[in-house]
Amino acid sequence: MNGSIVLSGGLILADPSNAEVAPHGITIVSGNRLSAVNVPAEFHPPGARVIDCTGCLVMPGLVNGHIHAAMSLMRGLADDLPLDRWLNDYMFPVEANHAGPEFVFLGTELSAIEMALNGVTTYADGYFHMEHAAAAAIEVGLRAIVAQGVLDVPTPNAPVADSWETRVETFLSAFPDDSLVSPALFCHSAYLCAPETLRRTRAICRERGMLLFTHVAETSREVEEMRSRYNVGPVEHLKNLDLLGPNLVAVHAVHVSKADIDILADTGTGVVHCPESNMKLASGAAPITEFLCRGVPVGIGTDGPASNNNLDLFEEMRSASFMAKLVTGNPEALDAAAVVRMATLDGARVLGMDHAIGSLEPGKLADVVVVDLKRPHLTPVYDPVSHLVYAARGSDVRDVIVNGVQVVENGRITTVDEQDVMRRAVAIAREIASTSGETTGT
Amino acid sequence: MNGSIVLSGGLILADPSNAEVAPHGITIVSGNRLSAVNVPAEFHPPGARVIDCTGCLVMPGLVNGHIHAAMSLMRGLADDLPLDRWLNDYMFPVEANHAGPEFVFLGTELSAIEMALNGVTTYADGYFHMEHAAAAAIEVGLRAIVAQGVLDVPTPNAPVADSWETRVETFLSAFPDDSLVSPALFCHSAYLCAPETLRRTRAICRERGMLLFTHVAETSREVEEMRSRYNVGPVEHLKNLDLLGPNLVAVHAVHVSKADIDILADTGTGVVHCPESNMKLASGAAPITEFLCRGVPVGIGTDGPASNNNLDLFEEMRSASFMAKLVTGNPEALDAAAVVRMATLDGARVLGMDHAIGSLEPGKLADVVVVDLKRPHLTPVYDPVSHLVYAARGSDVRDVIVNGVQVVENGRITTVDEQDVMRRAVAIAREIASTSGETTGT
Repeated sequence: MNGSIVLSGGLILADPSNAEVAPHGITIVSGNRLSAVNVPAEFHPPGARVIDCTGCLVMPGLVNGHIHAAMSLMRGLADDLPLDRWLNDYMFPVEANHAGPEFVFLGTELSAIEMALNGVTTYADGYFHMEHAAAAAIEVGLRAIVAQGVLDVPTPNAPVADSWETRVETFLSAFPDDSLVSPALFCHSAYLCAPETLRRTRAICRERGMLLFTHVAETSREVEEMRSRYNVGPVEHLKNLDLLGPNLVAVHAVHVSKADIDILADTGTGVVHCPESNMKLASGAAPITEFLCRGVPVGIGTDGPASNNNLDLFEEMRSASFMAKLVTGNPEALDAAAVVRMATLDGARVLGMDHAIGSLEPGKLADVVVVDLKRPHLTPVYDPVSHLVYAARGSDVRDVIVNGVQVVENGRITTVDEQDVMRRAVAIAREIASTSGETTGT
Repeated sequence: MNGSIVLSGGLILADPSNAEVAPHGITIVSGNRLSAVNVPAEFHPPGARVIDCTGCLVMPGLVNGHIHAAMSLMRGLADDLPLDRWLNDYMFPVEANHAGPEFVFLGTELSAIEMALNGVTTYADGYFHMEHAAAAAIEVGLRAIVAQGVLDVPTPNAPVADSWETRVETFLSAFPDDSLVSPALFCHSAYLCAPETLRRTRAICRERGMLLFTHVAETSREVEEMRSRYNVGPVEHLKNLDLLGPNLVAVHAVHVSKADIDILADTGTGVVHCPESNMKLASGAAPITEFLCRGVPVGIGTDGPASNNNLDLFEEMRSASFMAKLVTGNPEALDAAAVVRMATLDGARVLGMDHAIGSLEPGKLADVVVVDLKRPHLTPVYDPVSHLVYAARGSDVRDVIVNGVQVVENGRITTVDEQDVMRRAVAIAREIASTSGETTGT
């Protein structure tokens, strides 16, 4: 186990469910857990390492509810394109040629470094060769739910159609034994997975106590396609297959009807909202304020770095609030406190982890972020929660502790050689560019 | 004059009108102008100071077309509120009690520091006591168009109604004689300035060769109000008063009809788009793609830091593109190249300064920004212009040169004591909080 760490001074946002910020006494990390939160300095254990948080805000680590982490290696390869051309002309061909185990490990490592630097302590990933993605999360030291992609069509790690189940077996047997990472499955969507595939993955997930993720109602085209195939939209289709519930994570949920929202609420299905991806790909605006009214749990995700194109969850919080205000015409919609909750405790709830992370409480896992408020763009401070959503950015994160280990210290990653990862990423990008006709700048 | 500076290596985006990025030879700053742009290393003048830009992108400084800079001192004081409550319950009372010359100087200094650190080299400001705002711009070393606010109602610097003209005279006579700053006038809006006020400010501006700014069609309520008062919307009203043309800058232009767009295009009136402010206040989405189709010049602005709440123009570029894609339903709308142009050369054009700034050309003023691409979230680089809009943020700016002077070096401001400005801002915020019932966190 690790030695004790004491965070002292500054301000603390311990419980995002009430968004109250208080002057910070000390918070004690013992091993991988919080043993005391905001207690007087006299509780300081002898010999503990001290992180001085004067002028900073101490808060729970951010939860990125949806990412395809390895796609960082295709970041900026193809923008300003319709989804089908982006996928068919760029993403799929590059993945077919390049997305092997090394690509997945390296791309995930690069994304995990970026997320750590931006205050994300837990993320939910979905892609291919995912036992390698799990290894990368462990190497960087982030907490992750690592979901193996399931599609009926050929994929980079299951090149024969309908061979996904064999790939899932490989994934599960090779999955690293480490408390930082948990396995899960990710059915791409109900339009790329047949009903039998969805039923079978559900059964595997239930048997193993794993989460099942799927993209749902991302575009209006998808909804039309589903209706023409099954006479119902994707939410109702998933309900008919008995997939909905707290163990299913519905990603996007943009084009949903009132009846769909009721279904999600009644089944306790959680949603991950990806506002920047939905805007950039012109998919539309998910009805987040209605989800919250109906009690649907909602987290926030960046989506993959090839469709966003960064992994800054502060910016994503801001975009979530801005988009909700714009589409509802109401400047009070999705206020700062609600968005911070989505990016921490509510996101943890969607991933079934709110008993362990998402707030700073004695006994919870020690996932802590220190945001430096002593910056011109965060001066003065009237309301720190407002600053988190409307003014801060990931580069204001100074220190990050995950599972009791300080993975970011004074804005630098401590666990891996960032420069080496970037060098290897540039080398792979050169290969990709040479085969896809694009040119790399550096 | 200043000694020569040579920027060498990396990539260069010299001319945003074609968005071509090339490997960078050297660029030479002589005095306050560019004497050579992207020439071979053999042109290196002896004795010049060298800035090594390896792994960076060298580009023209960003142009922030609209800000109320001094309002940084009210940043985050009141968010998630309707515009009228925000103004009447928070902004106006605080301004009435606090917004004196010292407040304006200090708040502008704080904003100018933030803008410099984020790669803004020119900005257009509008507020009160503006000769003091001009002094702050000079102190920090940014280029600014500094517009004295004009309203019929009492203001912090003209507490008697209809006394604006006396205040304008004071402003013009006290305006500092420095090539970095140019005076202008800012009629708040056609609903807070009577037709006679608008006509008279227009006359003063024409006589002195100054720009005239005004908020136009920011909210649907404003348009209704104008219609009920004048039977026409704000754009037509301004046209009827002969205010439109290249010397008028129309800020916001959210709620405009096709006929209004034609009027703006036909008169050559420039628009400043403030996407984040328009989203945050739920004002609506300006029809930017239609403006561009019709040839209306469009720049980008952050709006004041009390309504945005940061001054990161990279983020503002991203939001401009995202909002356009969302409201048009077209992922190809307002692509990265178009947005970079808006934030540089087109913004300069709206301010009548494109002959002097907005691109890197020999003979133009030396306003140059160096963006560090060697960061995890900007790795790899397939398309640097895409990165500027979809992945970068202001904190990636490493060096900034304005008028031949390096005001930011390796992410630190060189011209003023940033810590001291922040300390003084916190002190004023404490006073504001104590009188407005809010509490300051730090």
